[in-house]
Amino acid sequence: MKFEGKKYHSLWYDRDKVYIIDQRFLPEQFVIERIKTSDQMITAIKDMHLRGAPLLGLAGAYGTFLAFRESFSKPEPEEYYETKINQLRNCRPTAVNLSWGVSKIDSLVKAGLELARILAGVKSLERNEIEACKNIGGNGFALIRDISNIVGRRPVNIMTHCNAGWLAAINYGTASAPVFIARDENIDVHVWVSETRPLNQGGKLTAWEYFNENISHTVISDNSCGHLLKNGMVDIVITGADRIAKNGDTANKIGTYLKALAAKDNNVPFYIAAPMSTIDFSIKSGKDIKIEERDENEMKYMNGVPIIYELSPVLNHAFDITPAELITGIITDRGIYKPGELLRLNL
Amino acid sequence: MKFEGKKYHSLWYDRDKVYIIDQRFLPEQFVIERIKTSDQMITAIKDMHLRGAPLLGLAGAYGTFLAFRESFSKPEPEEYYETKINQLRNCRPTAVNLSWGVSKIDSLVKAGLELARILAGVKSLERNEIEACKNIGGNGFALIRDISNIVGRRPVNIMTHCNAGWLAAINYGTASAPVFIARDENIDVHVWVSETRPLNQGGKLTAWEYFNENISHTVISDNSCGHLLKNGMVDIVITGADRIAKNGDTANKIGTYLKALAAKDNNVPFYIAAPMSTIDFSIKSGKDIKIEERDENEMKYMNGVPIIYELSPVLNHAFDITPAELITGIITDRGIYKPGELLRLNL
Repeated sequence: MKFEGKKYHSLWYDRDKVYIIDQRFLPEQFVIERIKTSDQMITAIKDMHLRGAPLLGLAGAYGTFLAFRESFSKPEPEEYYETKINQLRNCRPTAVNLSWGVSKIDSLVKAGLELARILAGVKSLERNEIEACKNIGGNGFALIRDISNIVGRRPVNIMTHCNAGWLAAINYGTASAPVFIARDENIDVHVWVSETRPLNQGGKLTAWEYFNENISHTVISDNSCGHLLKNGMVDIVITGADRIAKNGDTANKIGTYLKALAAKDNNVPFYIAAPMSTIDFSIKSGKDIKIEERDENEMKYMNGVPIIYELSPVLNHAFDITPAELITGIITDRGIYKPGELLRLNL
Repeated sequence: MKFEGKKYHSLWYDRDKVYIIDQRFLPEQFVIERIKTSDQMITAIKDMHLRGAPLLGLAGAYGTFLAFRESFSKPEPEEYYETKINQLRNCRPTAVNLSWGVSKIDSLVKAGLELARILAGVKSLERNEIEACKNIGGNGFALIRDISNIVGRRPVNIMTHCNAGWLAAINYGTASAPVFIARDENIDVHVWVSETRPLNQGGKLTAWEYFNENISHTVISDNSCGHLLKNGMVDIVITGADRIAKNGDTANKIGTYLKALAAKDNNVPFYIAAPMSTIDFSIKSGKDIKIEERDENEMKYMNGVPIIYELSPVLNHAFDITPAELITGIITDRGIYKPGELLRLNL
């Protein structure tokens, strides 16, 4: 998608190196980071130079490729490679896509493919994930179009949380893909962007994305969501997901559960948008999803400035679980499913 | 209550002047502001040098006294006085206590009392409000004690929102008063302090209050509340209120409604703590409560640093309405009532 009129992906590969947009500096600065080693990729994932479930999948895939490439020059290639892919897998615990991406490429390594074929495998996964987002967009667009037909001339009001935009997903995004397509189809949309404390990915990244794509949007505090939903100011809520259990329970950025409760209380449809790679068919319910706790300084400081009393302790959970019964549907690249229908998809 | 071991009220009168703790500078700096005129009081209220419903009531009362005192030296005393008390009343729209405090003292002025008697009236209102908070504490304490008896040796986990502590209410506070009394009665308590964006009165003021009173507490993002409630980490939620309608619908800091929804979804009792002066018997339901919209820069900047994309528009509602059906009870100075019982109290 566009930044200052020029098209970008959030990660790309060019002449032996991986390039990412270092999201820590947005929206103030647009910084491109060059990644040459698996260690650099591990740091980029851990310290959140990049984030977002689908992008983590691709980062895991490229990281695996880099680890394999490096292993040739190591005294113990296999041991080196296994150590690195384990580190990669465990950089962040909640999003399933990360270990999914590692496993996809690791299976090519284990099958004995040569380096060029493995790189081709990563690139194919990259194309598939972009295609998946495009398809999520098409499927979700149908929901927005239907609402537009009902509400008539006013814009369709969409609420989202965190950043499930193109920065989180190579291109198009997940929750944002239906919005981009609606815009392309000349449907009038307006997005309520929840700032998403503690890291404000909504207020910093999603707002920046929509501004650069010229899509009407307004940033609100996370606390405001209930008030807007109660007062008829929201037609549909669409968020991304970090991991979806087989029963439809969904882990996503902390605060998603509160939005789902408020949507239910006001009969506003609540959708999750995610590629199939975010569904973890190995876990039965949300209870089995590990919720990452992150450093308290993420809460206490913003851009280096203290915003919470420094002497008080802080607890910083990064995700919560939205129970399946609060979710109207899951917009995937293969279609829109009710949470209970995922069981049937388990192949 | 205490700051660095010394006892303070959030507002006091001494030798012709009103003194307040300028809350804009907390917790980094402890600044005392001296207020000599009604105009200074109007600025202090509007620009939130002080805030909190019960404290706004007393600020309105002292502001009315100051306006009356000033009016003697004006060419048109009555016109001057009426102009000032109208400005005072309209400084902030949501908390009923402000206009309640103005009206209380205005009725003494209209009754023709002399200046010293009017000051005595303000001081009596001040004593009553402090006494009310103490009584809220006693009434709410019974709830905490009952929970403590059930949970046994572990601390009682109380969740709160914003600052309904002594800074918001002269002394003791409203939602915090039961906590202080529980501590005095040797009941082990722990408070989850929601940071309360956009102004972070939870993370800045409530955390500071509890730190200085040596009460165990942890600051969390507003987004975390659902996760903690769902995972059995909260025994009771107690928040303050800015205005309570006759049917029990309650206006309080934006985000309170989301906490009430999550409490309900997880069968955790949700209480409002407020003096009788916060109940507005003139309004039937929450629909009649005006919700203040504040400046977008409150959202965009924290301590002068941008924390949201500066080119994006922002909407900043300061309060929301928690419907009566989500409220377990209202802890007042006169007792604990179910929301539906307020109708009977209307005298």
